[in-house]
Amino acid sequence: MSTQTSTRSARDVALHCGGVLRGDGAARVGGVSSIESANEGDVVFAADDARLKKALESRASLVMTGEFGANVQSSKPILIASDPKLAFARVAALFSRAERRVGHDESAQIHLSAKVGEETWIGPGVVVENGVGIGNRSSIEANSVVGADTVIGEDCRIGPNVTIHPGTKLGNRVVVQAGTVLGSTGFGYARDNAGHYHLFPQVGRLIIEDDVEIGANCTVDRGALDATVIRRGTKLDNMVHVGHNVEIGEDVVIAAQTGISGSARIGSGAIVGGQVGIGEHSEVKEGVILGGQSGVLNKKVLRGKGIVFWGTPARPLKDYLKELAALSRLTRKKEE
Amino acid sequence: MSTQTSTRSARDVALHCGGVLRGDGAARVGGVSSIESANEGDVVFAADDARLKKALESRASLVMTGEFGANVQSSKPILIASDPKLAFARVAALFSRAERRVGHDESAQIHLSAKVGEETWIGPGVVVENGVGIGNRSSIEANSVVGADTVIGEDCRIGPNVTIHPGTKLGNRVVVQAGTVLGSTGFGYARDNAGHYHLFPQVGRLIIEDDVEIGANCTVDRGALDATVIRRGTKLDNMVHVGHNVEIGEDVVIAAQTGISGSARIGSGAIVGGQVGIGEHSEVKEGVILGGQSGVLNKKVLRGKGIVFWGTPARPLKDYLKELAALSRLTRKKEE
Amino acid sequence: MSTQTSTRSARDVALHCGGVLRGDGAARVGGVSSIESANEGDVVFAADDARLKKALESRASLVMTGEFGANVQSSKPILIASDPKLAFARVAALFSRAERRVGHDESAQIHLSAKVGEETWIGPGVVVENGVGIGNRSSIEANSVVGADTVIGEDCRIGPNVTIHPGTKLGNRVVVQAGTVLGSTGFGYARDNAGHYHLFPQVGRLIIEDDVEIGANCTVDRGALDATVIRRGTKLDNMVHVGHNVEIGEDVVIAAQTGISGSARIGSGAIVGGQVGIGEHSEVKEGVILGGQSGVLNKKVLRGKGIVFWGTPARPLKDYLKELAALSRLTRKKEE
Repeated sequence: MSTQTSTRSARDVALHCGGVLRGDGAARVGGVSSIESANEGDVVFAADDARLKKALESRASLVMTGEFGANVQSSKPILIASDPKLAFARVAALFSRAERRVGHDESAQIHLSAKVGEETWIGPGVVVENGVGIGNRSSIEANSVVGADTVIGEDCRIGPNVTIHPGTKLGNRVVVQAGTVLGSTGFGYARDNAGHYHLFPQVGRLIIEDDVEIGANCTVDRGALDATVIRRGTKLDNMVHVGHNVEIGEDVVIAAQTGISGSARIGSGAIVGGQVGIGEHSEVKEGVILGGQSGVLNKKVLRGKGIVFWGTPARPLKDYLKELAALSRLTRKKEE
Repeated sequence: MSTQTSTRSARDVALHCGGVLRGDGAARVGGVSSIESANEGDVVFAADDARLKKALESRASLVMTGEFGANVQSSKPILIASDPKLAFARVAALFSRAERRVGHDESAQIHLSAKVGEETWIGPGVVVENGVGIGNRSSIEANSVVGADTVIGEDCRIGPNVTIHPGTKLGNRVVVQAGTVLGSTGFGYARDNAGHYHLFPQVGRLIIEDDVEIGANCTVDRGALDATVIRRGTKLDNMVHVGHNVEIGEDVVIAAQTGISGSARIGSGAIVGGQVGIGEHSEVKEGVILGGQSGVLNKKVLRGKGIVFWGTPARPLKDYLKELAALSRLTRKKEE
Repeated sequence: MSTQTSTRSARDVALHCGGVLRGDGAARVGGVSSIESANEGDVVFAADDARLKKALESRASLVMTGEFGANVQSSKPILIASDPKLAFARVAALFSRAERRVGHDESAQIHLSAKVGEETWIGPGVVVENGVGIGNRSSIEANSVVGADTVIGEDCRIGPNVTIHPGTKLGNRVVVQAGTVLGSTGFGYARDNAGHYHLFPQVGRLIIEDDVEIGANCTVDRGALDATVIRRGTKLDNMVHVGHNVEIGEDVVIAAQTGISGSARIGSGAIVGGQVGIGEHSEVKEGVILGGQSGVLNKKVLRGKGIVFWGTPARPLKDYLKELAALSRLTRKKEE
């Protein structure tokens, strides 16, 4: 086991994220932190004037901020970016990739047939079953279970206590947080004449593409006969449920506790709030925005890039707001 | 550790599930699969004409389909069923029972006082505490924890990273998916004069009857003083929460992310959508259907076999739809 | 490994919880139970006349009940309390603290640099990383993972399969149930011009104060740059999600499946129902009561000690009920 860290110059950081650097370009930095806990070598982010003042007084070696900070005087290097949050995110990614353990814990059970790449980390109590492939620089934290024939790409990070069912395929740079279950058995039953339920075969698989990030305690079912698919760049918050045969497009964001029923489709670039319910066989087309707690009925199709839908059943936000206003007027009228 | 598999003749399969077989009854089959990934020996399911055509061209050894396929010509054996989804579910169950590991991993900790049946599988890192009983042919996957004095019946399948608290009782053929917590401490507090909360004793137990299937990352609390009970044949999707002292009848289906508050009762044959909230001490009577995201108030009683309720507070679907229509008219009138 | 138990006299119990004892004050008791499963030495609770009758006929050694039981005749000791549920809760706490294992399982991995207090219990498969501190009498159950530099106070109970991320701080008497994830990475992204999302640094921490109790399969994210804080005495039911930078006051209760978005604040003494959604940067002020499934919009401030809010967007209960009534009238009028 070893920990790899590295530092870069402020000039390097500026080249990487595209901002304008003022001050000492040779200053060495090795990570990001909050202003309050900053140490020498840290990059910090200042969202407003008050925080910029604090940042410049902190022990940080580089301060990132927006164009409002262009005229501030300081002996500390400052990096001015037009989108400083994005720039700071990029810098953080630069350093987070550099910090990792390498090797495997002795208590990990790695099947002889598994193909494990270089510079990987497999933590204590992890079980890696037969036929699994794990790409270079990927890590699997303690007590996670990786089922047979699963393929994990490069630079993936699997948190602790994760379960990945057999045959799942993960691309590169996929992040799966603690407690999440991938490839679970979907909820599909056939009912007999006596009213008893029989599980319809759930023998499909789960495919997760590059750069997908999945929060903690989520569940993503494998397909029944085909596949459940989450496409490149999509991000899921904690406790999101994805049913069998669902297909989620690229660069979708889904907030916490949202549930997506079987065979639903979410188009690329959609933004889904928290606690949203999306019905079976429904379609949320490209770029649609769904407000928190809204509900999409089974088989319903919602379309319109940038259009916000809200309520249950989900309808255009402006209609929903009119309804709420009309309802409120109605009760006032009654009282008069 | 060993893997048991077996094959059956197409004729056997037909006898088991009740359909009409055309073609070679001696053909050997050993499992189900999707049409796309079918190999020799697989049974596949074709829901419509297009899929039936593909299925007959696939490498599968037996095709199951509905009565629409009765006149198709093929050299491949075809099994025609009046309810082909149900028939396919039954065939899958036949083979899934035949595929399993037997024995226990050396890293499993099985207390000397535990009684473990025959042909069981206890995976790596599993903890089985004192006084536990595990029936024949049951399996417990990696890193699960089975608390003291728990009783697990025959042919049960406990997924990885599951927690079962002490004293829980599971019947036969119970399925518990990964990450689920059974028998957790319920949420019952007494408030003192200073506004502090004190846990009311949660010393009851959890009883789960035969053929219950529970999804991934669910939580089912044990009773406070009495028992939480889930009766025969009931199916829970992922992330369902069941509070203390709840009683769920037979053959109930509950979709993902639904929460059932303490002391609620759900009658047999009820169908509960996803993200439904069911209040404390409420009753959802036999055969009631609750639409997704609906909410049942505390102490409320809903009754009516086959009656659909929706909205919060949950009301008959026809009333709710009228209200939605009236609300919509109201905003249109305003605009005129 | 050892189990410590102790008994007390009925008189001691009465002194501890403040009720009026009738009968043999020297009777020894050692735990609480339900009336049905009571054995000699148990304390039981009777909520009404029927249960009181059963309790007196049971094998229990002490019966706790309310003032309605003051005139009942019995040879068994009876403890009459003005708030018997609270009194019973206190008695249960007295005995639950006395029952625990001590030591650590050989399969636990405890880093040499970890500081582990006295009379602690660290179960099988537990991973305790470098720099962790664990206070006296705290327990960590099987297969849980405690990240580097985490501080756990005294008398804490961490259930099985829990994940605690590095740098988390827990006070004294904190309870964390099975499957819960503490200190996970928050859901904060910056979007670039191509529509791709980049994780904003989540390098803050999570601070949980004394007497906080957290249910099973919850997720509590650490701060982005600052801290997520849950203050003294607050109780979370199962599957509650708490986003990054959230601050929850003292003695708050939050029912199951509620989600709290990033940077929201919940005031002390608030009561939050199940499946509630609380928006980003919103404030639920001291003592506010939120009905189940209600939704608080982003940046919204709700105030009023003891005021009940309901619906989405959350509004005072009386307004919401008027709206529901008006809506119902509207549909009846249409029909006439």
